[in-house]
Amino acid sequence: GHVIVCGFGRNGRRAYQELRANGARVVAVEMDQELMKSFAEGRDDEDYEGTDLAGEKIFAVFGDATSDRVLMQAGVQRASALITALPKDADNVFVALSARALNPHLKIIARASYKTSESKLLSAGANSVVMPDEIGGSHMAKLVVRPEVIRFLDLISGLSADKLRLEELAFAQMRHDFHGQSIRDLDIRSRTGATIIGLRQQEGALLVSPPADYVPKAGDVLLVLGSEAQIESFEVKYRQL
Amino acid sequence: GHVIVCGFGRNGRRAYQELRANGARVVAVEMDQELMKSFAEGRDDEDYEGTDLAGEKIFAVFGDATSDRVLMQAGVQRASALITALPKDADNVFVALSARALNPHLKIIARASYKTSESKLLSAGANSVVMPDEIGGSHMAKLVVRPEVIRFLDLISGLSADKLRLEELAFAQMRHDFHGQSIRDLDIRSRTGATIIGLRQQEGALLVSPPADYVPKAGDVLLVLGSEAQIESFEVKYRQL
Ligand SMILES: [Ca+2]
Ligand SMILES: [Ca+2]
Repeated sequence: GHVIVCGFGRNGRRAYQELRANGARVVAVEMDQELMKSFAEGRDDEDYEGTDLAGEKIFAVFGDATSDRVLMQAGVQRASALITALPKDADNVFVALSARALNPHLKIIARASYKTSESKLLSAGANSVVMPDEIGGSHMAKLVVRPEVIRFLDLISGLSADKLRLEELAFAQMRHDFHGQSIRDLDIRSRTGATIIGLRQQEGALLVSPPADYVPKAGDVLLVLGSEAQIESFEVKYRQL
Repeated sequence: GHVIVCGFGRNGRRAYQELRANGARVVAVEMDQELMKSFAEGRDDEDYEGTDLAGEKIFAVFGDATSDRVLMQAGVQRASALITALPKDADNVFVALSARALNPHLKIIARASYKTSESKLLSAGANSVVMPDEIGGSHMAKLVVRPEVIRFLDLISGLSADKLRLEELAFAQMRHDFHGQSIRDLDIRSRTGATIIGLRQQEGALLVSPPADYVPKAGDVLLVLGSEAQIESFEVKYRQL
């Protein structure tokens, strides 16, 4: 299904761009048509299909995301995920509640300004809460006390100009002929240059640099780090088509 | 030297807390005394030493950080780092310029709302620019497209409830008897349980999971990941006292 982004402020816009860069289908919901237009190049006022700076169509619903009708227009009932990034925490709580009622299987991610809103958003049905000011503040402190750590994190999260990429591959997405092989047998490093830096086990534990004799099981997720080229080679060789 | 945090809004407060948790000496600069007091328990209006919720003293200068006099009161000339997290980008540019003029060796980290402010802040003398909305938006998108990646990043950056920690150790901070030893000889994993997941070479390259026969050199920085207990054991055994 598609992803709905409610609120096209700075958070929402950045989320939109990153989702599109990853090939997701996205519908934006925003009440301020001027805000959408400042983002879009093609200025098609009547229709809700503008064109963004890269020349591709933006699918947008102009309206208040706290209205069920607007969420339904954005296709909430068949969407796979919804990001609510409205400026007011109370509005994000309201959108989470409405969206959860309309689609019990939806993955809901909510922005919050205040720590006290976190539990409310989770109760309202959000699966995850993101607090940009907390993350930003923590980032600034780490630049002082642990600069190499933050440089590494920026690098692997794609925030830095360098092109290192951290990718995940679930066992179920791995080519079948690799099932049953140990980390050593998978031999990802010498075949692609990329490195397995972690493995999330189905039971929830994270193995950092999993041992060479570990055999990934159904439900496990590999975390693989490499340059763009290494990750592409990894995808081609290990991911099921 | 100490760290100055200008602006005690949500970003500044979070940075303050994380700096204190890491043992840094911090002086806050804020013009709104009410804002400081909402954070502090001890309400000592005259003096600029309040007490925070953990019962420790907060050193604060009440005043406008865009004034040289206020920055000097906060000890800018002998500080090692300054974080400017004022709400307006223009004010952060001004603070960066002033602080750089007063202390050429200061590490300056600036918050920005707008992408267009980044180059201005760097020209003004900031060493790093942090954009919380960009980071937050990217975080929300990753929760949709690469959830295990973001879970891993949250874990190693300390944003998650779990207690995995990523620590850095510069060659110069490493106990002398380990100098000249290879990654294999250092044997960090079996001695502490922690894992070397990266190594930043002095020349700037990052080695992911550095090879066992690599011998760290002066200027290199090790990136070590483990539980709190593992990292503590690592610090005790490998860091110079
Ligand atoms: Ca927004
Ligand atoms: Ca602030």
